[in-house]
This record gives sequence, structure tokens and C-alpha cells, in this order.
Amino acid sequence: MGLIVQKFGGTSVGSVEKILNVAGRVAEEKQNGNDVVVVVSAMGKTTDKLVEMARDISSSPSKREMDMLLTTGEQVTISLLAMALIEKGFDAVSYTGWQAGMMTEPVHGNARILDIKTDTIKRDLAEGKVVVVAGFQGITEESQITTLGRGGSDTTAVALAAALGADKCDIYTDVTGVFTTDPRYVKGARKLLGVSYDEMLELANLGAGVLHPRAVEFAKNYGVALEVRSSMERVSGTVIEEEVEMEQNLVVRGIAFEDQITRVSVIGLDNTLKSLPTIFSTLAENHINVDIIVQNGTGTDKANISFSIKSSDLAETLEVLERNKDLLNYQSIESETGLSKVSIVGSGMVSNPGVAAKMFEVLASQEIQVKMVSTSEIKVSTVLVDKQMVQAVEALHDAFDLSEAAVRS
Amino acid sequence: MGLIVQKFGGTSVGSVEKILNVAGRVAEEKQNGNDVVVVVSAMGKTTDKLVEMARDISSSPSKREMDMLLTTGEQVTISLLAMALIEKGFDAVSYTGWQAGMMTEPVHGNARILDIKTDTIKRDLAEGKVVVVAGFQGITEESQITTLGRGGSDTTAVALAAALGADKCDIYTDVTGVFTTDPRYVKGARKLLGVSYDEMLELANLGAGVLHPRAVEFAKNYGVALEVRSSMERVSGTVIEEEVEMEQNLVVRGIAFEDQITRVSVIGLDNTLKSLPTIFSTLAENHINVDIIVQNGTGTDKANISFSIKSSDLAETLEVLERNKDLLNYQSIESETGLSKVSIVGSGMVSNPGVAAKMFEVLASQEIQVKMVSTSEIKVSTVLVDKQMVQAVEALHDAFDLSEAAVRS
Repeated sequence: MGLIVQKFGGTSVGSVEKILNVAGRVAEEKQNGNDVVVVVSAMGKTTDKLVEMARDISSSPSKREMDMLLTTGEQVTISLLAMALIEKGFDAVSYTGWQAGMMTEPVHGNARILDIKTDTIKRDLAEGKVVVVAGFQGITEESQITTLGRGGSDTTAVALAAALGADKCDIYTDVTGVFTTDPRYVKGARKLLGVSYDEMLELANLGAGVLHPRAVEFAKNYGVALEVRSSMERVSGTVIEEEVEMEQNLVVRGIAFEDQITRVSVIGLDNTLKSLPTIFSTLAENHINVDIIVQNGTGTDKANISFSIKSSDLAETLEVLERNKDLLNYQSIESETGLSKVSIVGSGMVSNPGVAAKMFEVLASQEIQVKMVSTSEIKVSTVLVDKQMVQAVEALHDAFDLSEAAVRS
Repeated sequence: MGLIVQKFGGTSVGSVEKILNVAGRVAEEKQNGNDVVVVVSAMGKTTDKLVEMARDISSSPSKREMDMLLTTGEQVTISLLAMALIEKGFDAVSYTGWQAGMMTEPVHGNARILDIKTDTIKRDLAEGKVVVVAGFQGITEESQITTLGRGGSDTTAVALAAALGADKCDIYTDVTGVFTTDPRYVKGARKLLGVSYDEMLELANLGAGVLHPRAVEFAKNYGVALEVRSSMERVSGTVIEEEVEMEQNLVVRGIAFEDQITRVSVIGLDNTLKSLPTIFSTLAENHINVDIIVQNGTGTDKANISFSIKSSDLAETLEVLERNKDLLNYQSIESETGLSKVSIVGSGMVSNPGVAAKMFEVLASQEIQVKMVSTSEIKVSTVLVDKQMVQAVEALHDAFDLSEAAVRS
């Protein structure tokens, strides 16, 4: 008998029928003799519909009020799921983020969890109750409702698992696990039975989409055992744990990709120590997430800096740079949209030199021009034009033998 | 400069466009130099849609979880209205019931307000903010979310007006005021410029629908000046205050009516002192609202008791009576559905004998059989068959000269 935290995302709870299905999965776990805490997201397209209403009222709605609005989505799901469990004969109780003691920093739209006051949940579990918690949401010390940002329900689940000392955190989703690459684009994509936290972190950050990177980081820091699995099919998923046995030849474990990327270049910056921190702290203050950063021309007294952002952040990025032109002291700004990022990820790279070189060779053989490069110990990211993204992924998937070697027995 | 509490019901906030209209009405009041607290209901049919989802999951969903579910409705409206006000350049802030300090008794579905912790709202008003509060909802001392029952947003508004010492509480709705009877049924219905709390209480209790009876009672007890007015048309509404000047001949001020009434008769009860309290406390414990009560046959050792309920409560009423048959010690139960209640209301009745007699004469002349009667100092209620309801209302509206005498100059 253990304690399991289960998380079901928006597509898994997208209708009353699907909520009844989720109640069935929760019931199975409970009947196996486990204590269960369930974290759920808003139903299907609910969040999008709420955002649309807000946009009809204001082009830049108050972030506090957006949090107030969006948190209703999960509140609907928790109540319906608790009803379904009660209907099945279980003692179930639902809690919003604030009722579950999910304390966050005082930031709207993208708050981090500071602490979880677990007294209520622990008391309920001791009484044999199934506890259903609204994902994605929290509360500040001043009783302001906050949200954790998109994908925040994963973070809620992992944070609860850590705070409660759960034996396992199962992330139920609409795919059966983590794949070598996105099977919607690449036929040969295969499910991985295991990845390490670091690999998953790179895959999550790089847009694999099944698991929020902040949740993976939380799991790594607190040693929470994760499994990504299907809410519909009863098959084993992908286990994410500290050390994953290395398959023969599986230097690269997965290929992640993401479109809608824009490169922004700041031209003619003063080549001083202060230039870089000033630019990126200015962007950070304005909540613009910068991904890859490349600096050229350090030998002269003027430097050029390029970085990649989501294309949806371009307008705000340009506005922030323009507004701070005097402070930043640059000559001009260039930007290039219509780009994608393709990355290879694998812990095996550390001990296998030449992986990056092989990647560039494969891309060159496909006549794909690499616009930006960024590397870490376990990944190599390249930025290239949107139209060649799938071609690049397919070629790399073949070249690194991912179609063959994916299944760990 | 004063403090105004404005309340807008579901139809007044039924779409983004209507919310923008409401923001306009709030802005006008604020620009008149007043402090404004706005109470809103869920948008249009939101509550009905949520109830439908719950019913798809359970025929008798958990009341706690229903409160969790339904309170999302007003939370959506408060955030959208606050956004609209901020977009218009006002400093606005929205609060859920629990954030607004709306403390209730620990009852789900129909809780009464115990106290309002107004510190936060008072601080915001002092800072010049428009405060938007979710109607209908509250919180228990144990942080459980509760609701005040249907129409509870009126109560929220009046209770806030009382707690804040507001100068006025304006109830905005989709009609222009309180009418002598429902203008959808009776052509000659005219708007009243003023009614007393007691008259309004009878009219509200009897189904006039524009204002929740509990809200009127609250307003009477705390001397809150109310006005029922239109959210769309800029015309004066109906003022509800302690003493209303009596118009010549206006003995009856309004005619209320309500269909979907069922009479239940408990036959062959022991004619002891305990019978009556036992029956009605049993029904009350099961949250069945009994309206008119009539007792027959007190001369013998067996008594028959009849009472009226909403037809929707019939199944549960019969189940409660059946379950408690041994305790209540009766012989049989009879029920008659398809009934309506028609009532005449007016403070003038107190000093005008023969009003009830005139009512019965009018009904008899229309060949309408009266099934049950109940009277108070300012109203006479009759129960009759559904099919004759409108005919009865029209005849009484004419007979008591309401089409002529309604307008107070």
C-alpha cells in the first residue's frame, strides 16, 4: 500500500464521459489498496475559451484578473471528478489551489510554488478519502489567486507528490509515453521505456510537450518517481528516474522540435561587460523568455548578439528593446521569423564525442542550413527554417538509429 | 458623494457585450463621485449548463461539490467585469465570496450569511478602487465553499450594503421595476414607483421573481434602501423603503402568482400536540420548503393536514414521509399536482376589511375553485388549478383597479 499522485491533463478530462473514465482509473488505483491524490487540469478547450472572452474585453487584460478567470477551469473539473468518484461509492473531496494550501510567490500568470500546507490533505488521506486537487493554481500570502503558467498542473502534481512523500507520480496524458520524437510527424518514432530526469528536462524544454519542464526539475530535485502514461490505453508508459540503463548504441535518446521560433539580433552593442546582462535582465523583467543566445564579434568594440524567442513574443520583444534603446545603447535590431528548433537529446553524448559533428553532417547532407547552435552536455540544438523542420527530424531520427533501438526490455 | 452597491443579475451579464454595458453603468456611478461596490451573478445560462454537467454524472450530486462547481460561474463574471473596468481606465479589483469575507453557516446549497469581514473592501474603497464581488457565494469557518441558494446574489448585495453602511443598493435586472403583476401574462400590468419592505417581501416570496425574499428581509432588518431598476433602460425603477405613501384606492398593490405547485395531504394523523411539529420538522430537516399549511378535522382523534410544496420537491417529500411513516404515525398520503398559487398583496389590507371576501367573489364569478387559502395581514394567497391561473390574475388585477392606479407621481 502506497500513496500515488495521479495527474490528468485537459484532453483526459475533456468531457463528462472522459471524466467518468478518469474516475475509473482513480478507482482502480484506490482498489489496489493505494491512497490517491488526483490533480486535474481544466476541461479540454475551456482555458482557450476563457482567454478568448478576456481578449474580447481587453487586448492586454489585467494579469490578476486573468488568474481569477482561468482558475475557474480546474475548479469545474475537480468538482465533477469528485462527484463521479462519490457516485462510484468512494469518499472523495475536491480542493482548489488555495484550499489545498498551494502557496506561491506573488506573481500573476507564472507564479512559482513556495510551500504546500498539506495538513488538510493528509488528514483526508488518513480518513481514506480520495483527494482531488485543482492543478495550475495557487494562492499568495495575501490571499491573491495565482496561476503557475501553462502546463502548471504537472508542477502541481509533482510538488504535491514531493510534499506528501508520495511513492509515485503518474502523469496521465493522451499519448502512451515519451517518444524518440513526435510520432505525428515521424512514422518511425518509438516509445521510450525510460529516460533520465536530465534527458526529460531537455526533451520537455525543447517542446516535446508531454511534461512541463518545471515539473521535471521539481521531480529531479525532490527525487519524485514519474511515469508518463496514457489515460485511455492500459499500457505501461515511460518511467522518468535518476539513472536509466543505457541501451547499446542509444547515444541520442530523442529528437525534440518546435516551430514558431524567431531570431532577434541586436546589432552594434557596446562591447562592454555590462551589455549582455543589461539586455537579458531587461527582457526578463518584461517576462520575455529567451532561449538560445549567440554572441558574435567579441574582438571589436561593437558586439552583435542574437537570441531566439517564441514568435508570439516578437512584438513585445521589439517594443521592450525600442523602449530601452537609450539604456541598451545599440545601433539596430534585426529579426527573422519562420524558424524552427531541432534538438538531439541523450545522456550518452557526454561520453561520445562527435555527436554534434554527426548532427551537422546529417543536416548538411540534406542541404539544411543551420542558423544558430546551442549545446549542453546532453543535447545539441539547431535553429533552421520552418519548412525543413520535419525533414531534419526524420533524417536525424534515422541517422541516430532511433527507430530500431527504442525499446528497453 | 456616497457609497452605492450595484447588483447585476445573470441576464444583465449574459455576454461579453452585456458585461461591457454593465461596466458603463458602473462607470457612470463612479463618475458621479460615488464609491461603488458591484455584485454580479453568473453569466446567463452558465449555472444551468453547470448543473446539467453535474446531472450527467450523478442524479443526486454531492452538495459540497455542487457548490464547488457553481461558484465558478460568478468568478468568471467578476474577472471579466474587472477587466472591462480596468480597460476603461478605472482601478478595479474582483473578489470571490471567500476573498470578500462572506462568512456563512456550514450548509451547502442554501447557506445563510453569518458575517462579512469588510476590511479588504473598505481598504480598496479608500484607495478609490471599484470593488467587484461574486454574488451567491460564501465560505465557512472551515474554508469550505458555500452558496446562498438561487437568487443569492441579491442577498450578497444587500448584505454588503448593510455591512458597508452603503447609501443605497441598486438591483439591476432585465425589467424596469416591480409591477402590479407579471406583465408577460397581464397586459394591464403597471410599474410601481414604490413598495414597502413587507409588501415586497410578500411579492418576492410569492414568486414575483425580481428580488430574492431573503434579500428583502435583510434590507428591512438593516434599513437598506433598495431600488429595482433596468440594466438596459435609463429609467427610474421601483424604490423599496419602509413607508410608502398610500395611493387612493390602492388597497392591493400587486398580484403575485406561481405555478408548479403541489398539494400534499397527510391523512389520519393522531390528533396530538406532537403531530404538527413532528411532520414539519421532519420535512425541514430534509430541506423541503413547505409553503401553505392547512389543518382539517381537529374535532376528532384523527387529523388531516395539507400543505403546498413546489412540484419539483414532490418525489423527495413522498420519500421522506414514507421513510418516517412509523415516527409520524399517519394512515395515508394524498397529493395533487398541476396547481398554482395566486396572491393579492398590499399594506392597505390591514385597514380595509373585506378584501379577502372580494377576492373569493371575483374568483367564484370566474368559476375558479379555490383549493387552499392562506392569509397574512398584507396578503391573501389562494391555490387553484394551473389552467385557471392567468384568468384568475387578470380578473383580480381588474377588480382591484391595478391597471389604473399604479403610478405614484
